[in-house]
Amino acid sequence: MNDSLAVVLNHIQSRHDAAVAELSEFLRFASVSADPARAKDVEACAQWLAARISATGLTAQVLPTPGHPIVLARNEHRSDRPTVLLYGHYDVQPAEPLAAWITPPFEPTMRKTAAGTEAIFARGAADDKGQIWTHVEAISAWQSVGGGVPINLICLFEGEEEVDSHHLADFLEARREMLQADIAVISDTNCFARGVPAITTGLRGLVYSQITFRAAANDLHSGIHGGAILNPALALAKVLAAFHDESGRVTLDGFYDGVELPSESERQSWTALGFDDTQYAMELGLVRGENTLGGEANFTTLERRWARPTCDVCGLTSGYQGPGAKTIIPASATAKVSFRLVAGQDPLQVRAALEKFVWDHCPRGLAATITHYAAAPAALVDHQGRWASAATAAVARGFGTQPALIREGLTIPVVNLLKRMLKLDTLLLGFGLPDDQPHAPNEKFDLESLRAGTRTAAILYKMLAAADREGRFNVRVT
Amino acid sequence: MNDSLAVVLNHIQSRHDAAVAELSEFLRFASVSADPARAKDVEACAQWLAARISATGLTAQVLPTPGHPIVLARNEHRSDRPTVLLYGHYDVQPAEPLAAWITPPFEPTMRKTAAGTEAIFARGAADDKGQIWTHVEAISAWQSVGGGVPINLICLFEGEEEVDSHHLADFLEARREMLQADIAVISDTNCFARGVPAITTGLRGLVYSQITFRAAANDLHSGIHGGAILNPALALAKVLAAFHDESGRVTLDGFYDGVELPSESERQSWTALGFDDTQYAMELGLVRGENTLGGEANFTTLERRWARPTCDVCGLTSGYQGPGAKTIIPASATAKVSFRLVAGQDPLQVRAALEKFVWDHCPRGLAATITHYAAAPAALVDHQGRWASAATAAVARGFGTQPALIREGLTIPVVNLLKRMLKLDTLLLGFGLPDDQPHAPNEKFDLESLRAGTRTAAILYKMLAAADREGRFNVRVT
Repeated sequence: MNDSLAVVLNHIQSRHDAAVAELSEFLRFASVSADPARAKDVEACAQWLAARISATGLTAQVLPTPGHPIVLARNEHRSDRPTVLLYGHYDVQPAEPLAAWITPPFEPTMRKTAAGTEAIFARGAADDKGQIWTHVEAISAWQSVGGGVPINLICLFEGEEEVDSHHLADFLEARREMLQADIAVISDTNCFARGVPAITTGLRGLVYSQITFRAAANDLHSGIHGGAILNPALALAKVLAAFHDESGRVTLDGFYDGVELPSESERQSWTALGFDDTQYAMELGLVRGENTLGGEANFTTLERRWARPTCDVCGLTSGYQGPGAKTIIPASATAKVSFRLVAGQDPLQVRAALEKFVWDHCPRGLAATITHYAAAPAALVDHQGRWASAATAAVARGFGTQPALIREGLTIPVVNLLKRMLKLDTLLLGFGLPDDQPHAPNEKFDLESLRAGTRTAAILYKMLAAADREGRFNVRVT
Repeated sequence: MNDSLAVVLNHIQSRHDAAVAELSEFLRFASVSADPARAKDVEACAQWLAARISATGLTAQVLPTPGHPIVLARNEHRSDRPTVLLYGHYDVQPAEPLAAWITPPFEPTMRKTAAGTEAIFARGAADDKGQIWTHVEAISAWQSVGGGVPINLICLFEGEEEVDSHHLADFLEARREMLQADIAVISDTNCFARGVPAITTGLRGLVYSQITFRAAANDLHSGIHGGAILNPALALAKVLAAFHDESGRVTLDGFYDGVELPSESERQSWTALGFDDTQYAMELGLVRGENTLGGEANFTTLERRWARPTCDVCGLTSGYQGPGAKTIIPASATAKVSFRLVAGQDPLQVRAALEKFVWDHCPRGLAATITHYAAAPAALVDHQGRWASAATAAVARGFGTQPALIREGLTIPVVNLLKRMLKLDTLLLGFGLPDDQPHAPNEKFDLESLRAGTRTAAILYKMLAAADREGRFNVRVT
């Protein structure tokens, strides 16, 4: 092991408690990008993060966008070493439903997980503040005791990942030159399991839209008018009910056109991971255990999560939702729906098919409105060449065991953006665990994830510095 | 016209502004019985109402129940005159959605209606505080200048009508003796139209229940887990979508068993009322006018509202409902559903059929919970005999025109209770208007409704005093 790396890793080990304390500070910001009322918290979080990175000796700036700001930082670049763009996001999902949190979402708390490990609980602990923090700590260690980060580093931490990275494309476009790099690194994915680190080779895409049906100007008395007018909640239910056929397949026109199946070798390697449906169901707290598993017929659970497209309802709103009974016909009904996409699907075609489906199913007496949010294609990462080898070696050494090659079902639209706008391939090294509960109440990040992740990040910089700059691998944006 | 009645009617006319001012005070109480947080407002409203009635010279008490209290008042009873039980309710529906109110629901405001008339806008203005107020003013006038109310009067104003009159049955049971009367009067229904007063001859029943489907312990990330587990919102949508067939008929087993059609003469008299679908749609603010009318095929709008059973969704709640996108699979999904029943249907059988329907349609991996609220049968009133004649004469003189005989689609469970527990028939004389928006934002009561209603109430007492006590008519609780 290189001498300076050994010193860096020792320093990281000795800094653990301080790292947890600073991560806690980071997690206290309610940087909920979806909520306009939280804009000041998002801004304050960006300022805090930039200040913390500046303290390591990098140059850090908070750069405005028409939405939430981007934190951009860099060390001094030298022509004899590779340039790495490190992407992360400091914004977080909304914390609702608040009542389901054991401790408040923005008061980070240390306690045991169901698995008996120590973890820090807070909104954003895993997604993505905890994962950003592994890198900030690794940078800090290299800067403090390792003679400086051994690569040309560009840190880009955005504040709109959870709202579809609205302004990132324009930001990248305006700064193409200064963002030129050899490779991108993102830590916003998961290990396959506790003790089984992973390199992620594929992500699903996303189409997220909101459908509203409207009838009367106001809610109406269901006794006086019931039976006489169309009920928008019932009409909306008919649309949602028609999204899937009996076998769990999505019924939008052309939804499966072009969908690529994983290769036979991929499917075999996933089977070899020994995924346990029963344990999975238990970890999710499903009310009827593995009976609550569902979805498309004829695919394993991992295949349904990683390699098959989906349609889910994410939220329903209509009429009276308080305690007891209120006898009304709601004026309107709204559903939030998400489609996860895989290789071969075009998000804009899915959007168009959704619009057609809703128009086709909307009774002619109701007014339908569709609002579109995310539209991101799936991404497949082919692991070949030096960068990939460096990443694999870093994870293996940081975690003490070889990483599995997996996919994840979620969407990181920036992978597509970096490819399209900067021609950058991305290494997906994620340190989260499957029971971290991102996007849900009681989100957490294991302290061991922070430790091993920070080690891995520190090692990664050294490995990338040593990699052949001509080594290539390819991210295919589908 | 009897001398004392003329004096009373003159007094009522001169008191109009004071009556409006006192009704405003009454409307300021946020007596929302469904909301536990409003219990103190409900109690304060009862106390205020009792004090106001006491001031007229009647004896008034606020009597506790295990829920909200009942205001009971009476004059001195004499054996030579009939006893009338006047029922009303001082509780109101929840005011949500608050943002839809032009002026706050509990700050009564005078302004013009869309029809150009003057009205008082507030939650409860028509349902039922404004209608109670016609009687309080009539009582007050008789007591002040008419030599006292000319009948034996029992006023029973409850605080739980909007939550299924939970404790009224026990209250009536415990006070059978002191509540003995010859006839009941309720003013909680509508005129057929502005200028067309009505006697209501039928009410629909109600079954109101809440259905919840539950999957995981928490909301889950729709990317990580989408496609792998059952989505409770989608499963619930399938249940709701299955409630009706293509012709708008409800599909619960046995739902139409025993349903009685209105008589041919009733249907003809309703047709003769000249109900205008287009105007109705306009008044409700339906987004596509009469195209937004809907419901069961082969019945007119009045028939669907008055004489056909229905199923409506009154509320939907699931997952994320805030601004923007949150990519989750909801832990649970809930629907509030109401069934309006007609003569021949048994509410408990409908409940049982609903339970079976939900169990049959719930995927075996989800947990379903059904919470039942209201269960009330329909009521039909046959208008014959002296009491009915007295009521018709009172409305005719109070409004200056003959009343129409109509039905209403809503439910007044107390009509059934009074029949079952006290053997009391009920006269339904309502002074509301079809555009009053009860249960909806911007509820109002026309000032002319207050005037004509108060006159009618005052005349009614005199007419009932003169009616043959052996005159009978019959309320049939189906």
